[in-house]
Amino acid sequence: MNHFTSVNDVPDLSALLARCRSVKQNPLGTLNLGVGKTLGCIFFNPSLRTRLSTQRAAYNLGLSVIVMNIGAEGWKLEFEDGTVMNDDKAEHIKDAVAVMGQYCDVLGIRAFANLKDRDADYQEAILKAFKQYSGVPIISLESATRHPCQSLADLITIEQHKPSQVPTVLLTWAPHPKALPQAVGNSFAEWTLAAGYNLRIANPAGYDLNPEFTRGAEIFHDAKSAYEGVDFVYAKNWSSYQSYGEVLNQEMEWRVDEQKMALTENAGFMHCLPVRRNMVVTDAVIDSERSLVVEQAANRVVAAQAVLEAILR
Amino acid sequence: MNHFTSVNDVPDLSALLARCRSVKQNPLGTLNLGVGKTLGCIFFNPSLRTRLSTQRAAYNLGLSVIVMNIGAEGWKLEFEDGTVMNDDKAEHIKDAVAVMGQYCDVLGIRAFANLKDRDADYQEAILKAFKQYSGVPIISLESATRHPCQSLADLITIEQHKPSQVPTVLLTWAPHPKALPQAVGNSFAEWTLAAGYNLRIANPAGYDLNPEFTRGAEIFHDAKSAYEGVDFVYAKNWSSYQSYGEVLNQEMEWRVDEQKMALTENAGFMHCLPVRRNMVVTDAVIDSERSLVVEQAANRVVAAQAVLEAILR
Amino acid sequence: MNHFTSVNDVPDLSALLARCRSVKQNPLGTLNLGVGKTLGCIFFNPSLRTRLSTQRAAYNLGLSVIVMNIGAEGWKLEFEDGTVMNDDKAEHIKDAVAVMGQYCDVLGIRAFANLKDRDADYQEAILKAFKQYSGVPIISLESATRHPCQSLADLITIEQHKPSQVPTVLLTWAPHPKALPQAVGNSFAEWTLAAGYNLRIANPAGYDLNPEFTRGAEIFHDAKSAYEGVDFVYAKNWSSYQSYGEVLNQEMEWRVDEQKMALTENAGFMHCLPVRRNMVVTDAVIDSERSLVVEQAANRVVAAQAVLEAILR
Repeated sequence: MNHFTSVNDVPDLSALLARCRSVKQNPLGTLNLGVGKTLGCIFFNPSLRTRLSTQRAAYNLGLSVIVMNIGAEGWKLEFEDGTVMNDDKAEHIKDAVAVMGQYCDVLGIRAFANLKDRDADYQEAILKAFKQYSGVPIISLESATRHPCQSLADLITIEQHKPSQVPTVLLTWAPHPKALPQAVGNSFAEWTLAAGYNLRIANPAGYDLNPEFTRGAEIFHDAKSAYEGVDFVYAKNWSSYQSYGEVLNQEMEWRVDEQKMALTENAGFMHCLPVRRNMVVTDAVIDSERSLVVEQAANRVVAAQAVLEAILR
Repeated sequence: MNHFTSVNDVPDLSALLARCRSVKQNPLGTLNLGVGKTLGCIFFNPSLRTRLSTQRAAYNLGLSVIVMNIGAEGWKLEFEDGTVMNDDKAEHIKDAVAVMGQYCDVLGIRAFANLKDRDADYQEAILKAFKQYSGVPIISLESATRHPCQSLADLITIEQHKPSQVPTVLLTWAPHPKALPQAVGNSFAEWTLAAGYNLRIANPAGYDLNPEFTRGAEIFHDAKSAYEGVDFVYAKNWSSYQSYGEVLNQEMEWRVDEQKMALTENAGFMHCLPVRRNMVVTDAVIDSERSLVVEQAANRVVAAQAVLEAILR
Repeated sequence: MNHFTSVNDVPDLSALLARCRSVKQNPLGTLNLGVGKTLGCIFFNPSLRTRLSTQRAAYNLGLSVIVMNIGAEGWKLEFEDGTVMNDDKAEHIKDAVAVMGQYCDVLGIRAFANLKDRDADYQEAILKAFKQYSGVPIISLESATRHPCQSLADLITIEQHKPSQVPTVLLTWAPHPKALPQAVGNSFAEWTLAAGYNLRIANPAGYDLNPEFTRGAEIFHDAKSAYEGVDFVYAKNWSSYQSYGEVLNQEMEWRVDEQKMALTENAGFMHCLPVRRNMVVTDAVIDSERSLVVEQAANRVVAAQAVLEAILR
């Protein structure tokens, strides 16, 4: 694997999932693989799960880790080519990235969507700059439009709990007080479709995700009917893709609750966390035996470790 | 040892102090004990000595370390159960903590008192949440009401310098421009009493510490008389426990100076640092041969290492 | 080597440069030298290249690393002796430093010039306090007046590319929107002179560097004539030393461009980064085959590793 920024970077998804099973069984089996090598984790946005799970995965492989919070510890970067840099931007992204690539063997990058300019966000300028100028393998730790480390952890979780070879999975939009990126939703759609699952997506009208990610999924525009018979319910808020970045409604009927879960085939409840309790999902559901959220989070280490291992080999 | 949040978590204080002596003599004797394991240090408040000494102790045991400054790098956490999380708090403490416990084998937590609501502070909500939801051993890196790593370092220092089996120790309040927590004072009281020392506490009227921590100590309300004949003088400011969090006075007569030190049995001077020079203690005392403050700080590594070792075993 | 804060701390520059060549050829040859030891990196100012390259160098030697951003993670420090510390400064530099020296085997310090009080900056209070009170070897990661790790990386780069035994090197001032310290310029001058190179310095009138650093160099006050026949062009902005900290002009005729580079002996272009493109140097020059800036940045690891190795031995 050269980079890990979307499911398209994975040459053989089944093989990667098999490797994840091995890593989970024996996390310290390759404690010397990364000795003498360094992973750099560059955060343009805050992170808890992603940073901690990626650091832990790296340590399990004997890698050294350097963490850099660009916002808090760095300075403003210029992205335009050819400008006279006489304002508040102290360094061009291409110079900063070329240098980081000299100091680290692998780079993980987190850079969220701004939710202001759709074309800009979907062009993934930061991720592209790192691929183009760093000279080393790049791992997306959530970009403007995708969150592949999360999606791989989601698939590991589903694989462990699926009741049949081809499970039916519901990705349901849920209300949230703030405008959020579409990255987790986009990514979950493309990974579950690549895995061959039956994917349903339920969201209010006006909240359809970018069809490039959801082609092959069944789309529902009511809060309830899609729950019937599904094996997994994955809740996630995202802001509108069409009315880009807007919060069109916060209708609480879209909250995941026991009534709707009762319509499923005893489905597992999933969420990538952090979650707004009783806004996205009721306490009764997230604290139930069918809740997989902590295991999902634990699988972030497994996913990151399998990806790092594939890149190091 | 399961957790390390107060002296009550220590099954055998003499044995722990004996182990501290061994660690101090041979700090790298167990460099492989923690290999493949990770300590997470979660700071809700800033830290210099505690973070550096704990990291160093962990490295001496071969542990990997992940540091997270929740304030600077994280987001606001919800502590109430059952609320609809539609405000600025992005994650419930119980979810954040459950996840951290999946990524780390041991967690160290720093969470100061707010000094606004005494009952809330003394309930130790954050520390309790980590104990309840993380599933891993918890080390207090200073909580709202206690600072056990500091107290263990203090005892190591006293043990090395005590002129007799049962030394007489004076904990004296000292003036300070800001309102400070009672954690160091509380903790020093309960640890020295557990060690069987003679403990005197001197503070102005209105500044008595919570009697649950000081039962067995002799309390003085004047600045001078308690110094007579003591072997150690430990200076520390705290805000009022009764008029909770208030600064009732800044009387400079309570400052530790050479005149008062001359009343002692050539006592060692102790302070946990950081210290306001010439406010809490004069330069002449803290820079004298009887000052133990740097050695005390150095013993923070020894204390943290012995605690981590006891938890790992 | 006891400390590494200027070229004067280097007992044998040729030997250090020879060691740098070995480190570059075999960076992991001494992966166990630092095991059980810890480098502390204390930043009073932000850092990208310096922090990442120093961390990587330390990991290549098996050192553990503790990073502390004093501004973001610490508190205000008192520098005056004898004051009553009753204001916003929570700790005296001498106490903070003494403690850090107890926790780390080597300390790296970054503390920029304030550019307000020339005497204060050139007295290097912070660096001196670390030397005086820490009790351990100190590495300057850029102080108020010098940047020796950068200069050593610069010399490594020149040594690899110099067309003759004694190259001719031009350090040219270049325009910049902000007032910058003189540290890189000062340091480059004293290191290239110590290496025996022919040094030319070109800057507008009013921008002469402190003559203590440049004695032996040929000074030019026009933007162009110094380029003729040089082997290396090193661009850097600095604010005025005479009119201390002031930006006297931003004349774009001082920008490094292809016309001026054409006057040289096919010179290599150097800059320490971060660089304001098209302000300090045109894209055409920095993106040309003669640009050495990325290699220079890569050599920061080599320099830091050779220095750490010399200190550890």
